[in-house]
Amino acid sequence: MESIVGCGRGKANLERAVELGVIDRYSHDPAQAVRGADMVFLAVPLGAMAGVLRAIGPVLADNAVVTDGGSVKGSVLDDARQVFGKLPPWLVPGHPIAGTENSGVEASFAELYYNRRVILTPSDATDSTALDRVRRMWEVRGASVVNMSATHHDQVLAATSHLPHMLAFSLVDALARMEENDEIFRYAAGGFRDFTRIASSNPGMWRDICVANRGELRSMLKRYADELHDLADALDEEDGGERLLAIFERAKAARDRYIDGVTDKE
Amino acid sequence: MESIVGCGRGKANLERAVELGVIDRYSHDPAQAVRGADMVFLAVPLGAMAGVLRAIGPVLADNAVVTDGGSVKGSVLDDARQVFGKLPPWLVPGHPIAGTENSGVEASFAELYYNRRVILTPSDATDSTALDRVRRMWEVRGASVVNMSATHHDQVLAATSHLPHMLAFSLVDALARMEENDEIFRYAAGGFRDFTRIASSNPGMWRDICVANRGELRSMLKRYADELHDLADALDEEDGGERLLAIFERAKAARDRYIDGVTDKE
Repeated sequence: MESIVGCGRGKANLERAVELGVIDRYSHDPAQAVRGADMVFLAVPLGAMAGVLRAIGPVLADNAVVTDGGSVKGSVLDDARQVFGKLPPWLVPGHPIAGTENSGVEASFAELYYNRRVILTPSDATDSTALDRVRRMWEVRGASVVNMSATHHDQVLAATSHLPHMLAFSLVDALARMEENDEIFRYAAGGFRDFTRIASSNPGMWRDICVANRGELRSMLKRYADELHDLADALDEEDGGERLLAIFERAKAARDRYIDGVTDKE
Repeated sequence: MESIVGCGRGKANLERAVELGVIDRYSHDPAQAVRGADMVFLAVPLGAMAGVLRAIGPVLADNAVVTDGGSVKGSVLDDARQVFGKLPPWLVPGHPIAGTENSGVEASFAELYYNRRVILTPSDATDSTALDRVRRMWEVRGASVVNMSATHHDQVLAATSHLPHMLAFSLVDALARMEENDEIFRYAAGGFRDFTRIASSNPGMWRDICVANRGELRSMLKRYADELHDLADALDEEDGGERLLAIFERAKAARDRYIDGVTDKE
């Protein structure tokens, strides 16, 4: 009989998942949870990925396919290479571009992946049947699936997700450390609330993501910091802010175009 | 008979405002619009403030009170000082902390100021009756009114509003200038959408705000840019991202506290 086995550390969350019908049963032991499974989905912080691969590798069934939802793909391939000595054919790294700042089974909902994109980053060693099974799993949930290299994925996601998270976390922290921080937050309006929503995300998970994609992020952060110095200089120019206006106009045009594109899809 | 007179450049917007009952009639000429008015609210970009003050000053009624909604208050006081040679008793600079990224009369709604904060920054010259009339005007719309110095206002708002807008505009512009920009926006998720919402704001209005508050913004931008360089260095530390984790945890705690505070108010 087909069944879904959950695995995790928190007993309360797993029991709630059984109550909600999200899983059929659970185990706290990864090796026990994956025994006999034909499809394994790893949703663990990137820092825990190597340990879980090491735990489940020896007990996987012959026809098992393993995929994951980690936000950095190069580090998952590195972990697999390190644990198994080479990249296994049954590993299909993946990244669903969906989610909220909340975690735990209570934050789940059936339409989470509907009309969302899922990026798969198969390696040269990945078996094509395994890739196809993972693709079909996502398509059944209403997602549209694309393949790209892990390197390319990590560049694109650094720009659209990892860098914005670092900026939001560090801005809120910088403001919280200012002397008048109570007052500052008191007079913050809706724009600030939206701008900083992602700073309410899970700190440990995001620490892992940023460290795992440190190569891309390091250069993006430094480049962006240099742009901010330029922006500060532009404030003082005698042209009445023409350079600022050009930046703001390009940004609004790009952002409005992007939102129109998203709205068309939905 | 009491009536509300609109003033602006765009005929279509003003006629729509009459249709919607937001104003009773309109003029394109500020001096004509304020004739006989007992309360004047200036909602113009900060760069237009001096010109409007110069136009209306000579024709204001004896009992007229003038207030405004500009996002920087030091520059409004500077403009008034420059136009009138000294600060007039009838000027009550103000800033309602409310609004959306949209503009025009179609973007207005009756509850916009309900449960929002309005900051008034009277000068030493401001008449106390004038201050009281402006306060009551806002309170009737459901806002809670506080007084503070223009300098203090401009510091607090630089942190919670002007800096975040500059960051959002410059991030979206930086991504739009990257080679793979189509792809980058295609794989952006909801977090990016929220983080960059304020980059859809009016570019000209924000250019004026940033230039008007350049003193505060210059130092905040440079300080934040230095923090980003530190953050880039923290990615490479051998402690597995402990410093990043500490920043992310402090930020999440501050942001969650702030949101709880806002939710309690609403």
